[in-house]
Amino acid sequence: MPVPYVFVTVEAILRTHPRPLIADAAVLARCIDECSACAGTCTICADACLAEDDVRDMARCIRLCLDCADTCVAVGRVLSRQTDPDASSQLAALEACLAACRACATECERHAHHHEHCRLCAEECRRCERACDELLSALRG
Amino acid sequence: MPVPYVFVTVEAILRTHPRPLIADAAVLARCIDECSACAGTCTICADACLAEDDVRDMARCIRLCLDCADTCVAVGRVLSRQTDPDASSQLAALEACLAACRACATECERHAHHHEHCRLCAEECRRCERACDELLSALRG
Amino acid sequence: MPVPYVFVTVEAILRTHPRPLIADAAVLARCIDECSACAGTCTICADACLAEDDVRDMARCIRLCLDCADTCVAVGRVLSRQTDPDASSQLAALEACLAACRACATECERHAHHHEHCRLCAEECRRCERACDELLSALRG
Amino acid sequence: MPVPYVFVTVEAILRTHPRPLIADAAVLARCIDECSACAGTCTICADACLAEDDVRDMARCIRLCLDCADTCVAVGRVLSRQTDPDASSQLAALEACLAACRACATECERHAHHHEHCRLCAEECRRCERACDELLSALRG
Repeated sequence: MPVPYVFVTVEAILRTHPRPLIADAAVLARCIDECSACAGTCTICADACLAEDDVRDMARCIRLCLDCADTCVAVGRVLSRQTDPDASSQLAALEACLAACRACATECERHAHHHEHCRLCAEECRRCERACDELLSALRG
Repeated sequence: MPVPYVFVTVEAILRTHPRPLIADAAVLARCIDECSACAGTCTICADACLAEDDVRDMARCIRLCLDCADTCVAVGRVLSRQTDPDASSQLAALEACLAACRACATECERHAHHHEHCRLCAEECRRCERACDELLSALRG
Repeated sequence: MPVPYVFVTVEAILRTHPRPLIADAAVLARCIDECSACAGTCTICADACLAEDDVRDMARCIRLCLDCADTCVAVGRVLSRQTDPDASSQLAALEACLAACRACATECERHAHHHEHCRLCAEECRRCERACDELLSALRG
Repeated sequence: MPVPYVFVTVEAILRTHPRPLIADAAVLARCIDECSACAGTCTICADACLAEDDVRDMARCIRLCLDCADTCVAVGRVLSRQTDPDASSQLAALEACLAACRACATECERHAHHHEHCRLCAEECRRCERACDELLSALRG
């Protein structure tokens, strides 16, 4: 079985940062990892929906997957940076990510029974939503 | 003088979309255009700061420029999509963009007197902040 | 008429960079501007295609528009940076952008007669392709 | 130990795609996963370099990390899409990713002995370079 080096590496490299991290390393790394995983899953789900026979019914799902992927990439980057952060921007970024994940999960769940990619994508969006929520709670103290 | 075809094209292509636009075409196009312009300006400003002799004093500026560029790209894309949008995600995206532009503008303004790229970048960030604010008002009705 | 400040700003801010530019400022700015315009146009065209009644026939067009948008954003950023560039990466980035624009233009042209957004998008992709080609020639000397 | 669900999920969701995959699922998923991991590592390394006392010596490293992150995100997305791909664009995207990873790895290796984040980042860039190379060989047959 391949070593799960993505997850190890994100937390590992965060721990080498010369500045104090904005949150507990494990909570922060988990959120960044989920943003990355969710961006990847949504990109594939959008494309898989596009190739389905019922693509006309999948337009909203594709659209929300693309929104979620774009938002997750940007927010994962904002959270990856530890140098002199702006607290308001980080909170607003997390709120945006949470909203995008929630909207995408809700729509994917509607199609989960007939498209396996939607079931997997919804699952990942919910994980990312939770990770954003946990980091938000940690940052708000 | 070159024809300002970026601006024309964004509004023009939005007007060909088969669905009703989420807001007045001019207000919406202006916000998408500003996100695009701001992303570009912040990317260049971050890199120009990196090449300055006083780069150690520019770390926060570089970091906030990168955050702002990433956020503007993602939010500009979310706003570009008119097919079955999710209202909460759009509002949260706009709030995130507004916060990123404000933080970057505030920091760039501190360096505007000695780095011309920071002066130009701050100006563009303020423009984008205003465009996000106008679209937020329009969407909230 | 609105002032064409995106174009002015990109070239203007490039000219304030402390390092020598990798190419003539106007040629370089034009390519960065076209990458930005093309990314925006492709994002809107993909979404407009998604809302069309004949979306099943537009799957390849949507897919190539998304590829082109992603590639243009990344390449526009690589070209925006003037600090200690890597020549091979820049050339390979430009080749990738040129290929993405060409593929997207070719597909959009097939739909130009019945979808106005495809006609506009194809036009913009061809502009971006040309701007990449010109910059490639300039960089290869 | 946390379940390595990013890797499982990418390959798993690819396997649910209604179209034939462009390459062997494991080879393709590995490349997409490495693009994602490399984008994350480079984003953190760039920011960690920015916070180092010797940031003036790290300008090229920061710049190439940012290029590599942007390129990896875009290329990972292009490779994630299986619907009606354009072969030339995919090959050119992979070549661009390979060049960006190589340039970033070479520079990070120069700093690996004194910055642990550079050592980890170089390692990840080399992994991604190899994964791109393997997929290129597979696609070229």
